[in-house]
Amino acid sequence: MTPLPPGSTIGILGGGQLGRMLALAAAELGYRCHIYCPEEDSPASHVAAATTVAAYDDTAALKDFAQSADIVTYEFENIPANVTSALAQYVKVAPNGRALDIAQDRLSEKDFVANLGGKTPAYRAVSSLDDLKTAAAEIGLPAILKTRRLGYDGKGQFRLMEQTQIHKAWDQLGHTDLILEAFVAFEREVSVLVVRDWNGTMVHYGPVENIHQDGILSLSRAPATLQEVQSNDAIALARHIAESLDYVGVLGVEMFVTPKGVLFNEMAPRVHNSGHWTIEGAVVSQFENHIRAICGLPLGATDLMGRIEMRNLIGDEAHRWHDLLQDPYAHLHLYGKMETRPGRKMGHVTWVR
Amino acid sequence: MTPLPPGSTIGILGGGQLGRMLALAAAELGYRCHIYCPEEDSPASHVAAATTVAAYDDTAALKDFAQSADIVTYEFENIPANVTSALAQYVKVAPNGRALDIAQDRLSEKDFVANLGGKTPAYRAVSSLDDLKTAAAEIGLPAILKTRRLGYDGKGQFRLMEQTQIHKAWDQLGHTDLILEAFVAFEREVSVLVVRDWNGTMVHYGPVENIHQDGILSLSRAPATLQEVQSNDAIALARHIAESLDYVGVLGVEMFVTPKGVLFNEMAPRVHNSGHWTIEGAVVSQFENHIRAICGLPLGATDLMGRIEMRNLIGDEAHRWHDLLQDPYAHLHLYGKMETRPGRKMGHVTWVR
Repeated sequence: MTPLPPGSTIGILGGGQLGRMLALAAAELGYRCHIYCPEEDSPASHVAAATTVAAYDDTAALKDFAQSADIVTYEFENIPANVTSALAQYVKVAPNGRALDIAQDRLSEKDFVANLGGKTPAYRAVSSLDDLKTAAAEIGLPAILKTRRLGYDGKGQFRLMEQTQIHKAWDQLGHTDLILEAFVAFEREVSVLVVRDWNGTMVHYGPVENIHQDGILSLSRAPATLQEVQSNDAIALARHIAESLDYVGVLGVEMFVTPKGVLFNEMAPRVHNSGHWTIEGAVVSQFENHIRAICGLPLGATDLMGRIEMRNLIGDEAHRWHDLLQDPYAHLHLYGKMETRPGRKMGHVTWVR
Repeated sequence: MTPLPPGSTIGILGGGQLGRMLALAAAELGYRCHIYCPEEDSPASHVAAATTVAAYDDTAALKDFAQSADIVTYEFENIPANVTSALAQYVKVAPNGRALDIAQDRLSEKDFVANLGGKTPAYRAVSSLDDLKTAAAEIGLPAILKTRRLGYDGKGQFRLMEQTQIHKAWDQLGHTDLILEAFVAFEREVSVLVVRDWNGTMVHYGPVENIHQDGILSLSRAPATLQEVQSNDAIALARHIAESLDYVGVLGVEMFVTPKGVLFNEMAPRVHNSGHWTIEGAVVSQFENHIRAICGLPLGATDLMGRIEMRNLIGDEAHRWHDLLQDPYAHLHLYGKMETRPGRKMGHVTWVR
């Protein structure tokens, strides 16, 4: 792809904190951002040259948006599939629609990775109560029942500890397509963020070690404490996925490190929460490298600046902003969200040591 | 001052690259920015939550702007004095009006520093051709004739090498108040950027070594190669000035290092071009620390991340953006200016080694 010259416009679907941090990175490189999202006063809109507030099924608005932009990307994967195909009539969209389709569906992404030869926890598709009973018998309990689509931050999940919970789990989630996944007694949860450009050149961040609380990322540490073979396996799997998808941009791949090796957990076709530390902790951040990749610019260096810790500020934790700033080495990031809600990602803090 | 909570609005007078980089830093901390400038489509407006395009003498627009903001700051010093006093009726303005008044006038700032006990090159006020002749005789030639106000990047200056040029210099600049300054055979040009908060706490960056071409900053290196006594003198003078002005925010102080010691050259009551490298080259940047200072937050650490070089991209030099990005360690910044003009600051590049 011909590099997009400075002054070009990057369209971003979604107005949350990932869009905000992408827009900040794009601005440093001299690009303009145009945000498209249904919400008024979104975090990304505060730092963008233009914003369209419209629904994802507003065909006319999508067309105008596409025609205003030189490239379109997105900051969350739960975009209706017809949106990106509608946009693609008028403008390049990266990452591509196939990556988005696969990553939107927990079953598809596991099938895809298994077909590549990647290891995954045992899993079964579940479309009925009978399916669920069979799957539970085959996989064994404990296991985790998840909606195939639209789940994030622990939402749309039921941890099935014993047979007696099967009906309750079905009542709670059975309204939609599901997947039952074996419970993994992991040593660590890690992620690798791969950046791939239009020529197939790749760089990566990680493996990063991640600690979740109540299904939400709480803490990331880089580099993760792993054996070399574990680290290499995690990186190789993430790169293999990106390459097989002919992916362009940042791809976040979450994995379990277990005694049996590295198992694929899930992937996100976008910049990833476990890479927020790269703003201060890497030579070039995931946000800038995503922009560089989709705009056809050479990728930047991903070397670490030290040992890094990133903590999310969830809900009320963001009220600690002033205490956190007492440490002159704490890098505080707040996302401009006016309403604090439990479980809502309000900001993060990074330390580079 | 009570710290401004996240979500507060920072008003910024001026829409250029300094306003842009301030707005980017403010967004990371969860603040909104409101830009006020006379130009449509200004660099800062691309990354701000709100922009008012209006003249600096539009009293109604200034009032609305002031009332929308929780604090007002500025990104350039050539703001008409009545603007900040008009704003100050409705909202806190930092840095304060006295700093602005003094820094707007090359005579006032030298008088001020001389009164503090700081060394300056010899200088004389010039209001007539006779003044100029007398001053040239007293100071000796070569000397530099400068407009007292509104000069920047080498504009409004005449380098007076010999007596025969006096009439020409007067013809060129004599329409306004002038100052004649002795030509300084300096070893180095350096700057120190002091950040001071409402409580009087100070941190600083530098001394930075600066190289100008055609009166425009071309290159900055940090740390500057100085003897310890020179470095200490430069820092002490900059801190003394900030303290004496009861200054809040970033103050840029440019100095000459000479065999006779450190001489004050000029100061800027704002974030400074010679500190752009702090985005990647210091723990917390001058832009973030300016925002922290004016918003009543604790100041961030100013430690260097290595040996740093920052090059300005002036005019056509910005066309080299793609070549520069071939180096994965080059941090490219472009300011979103659509029109390239000779002498116009289009961007900069920073290397941290």
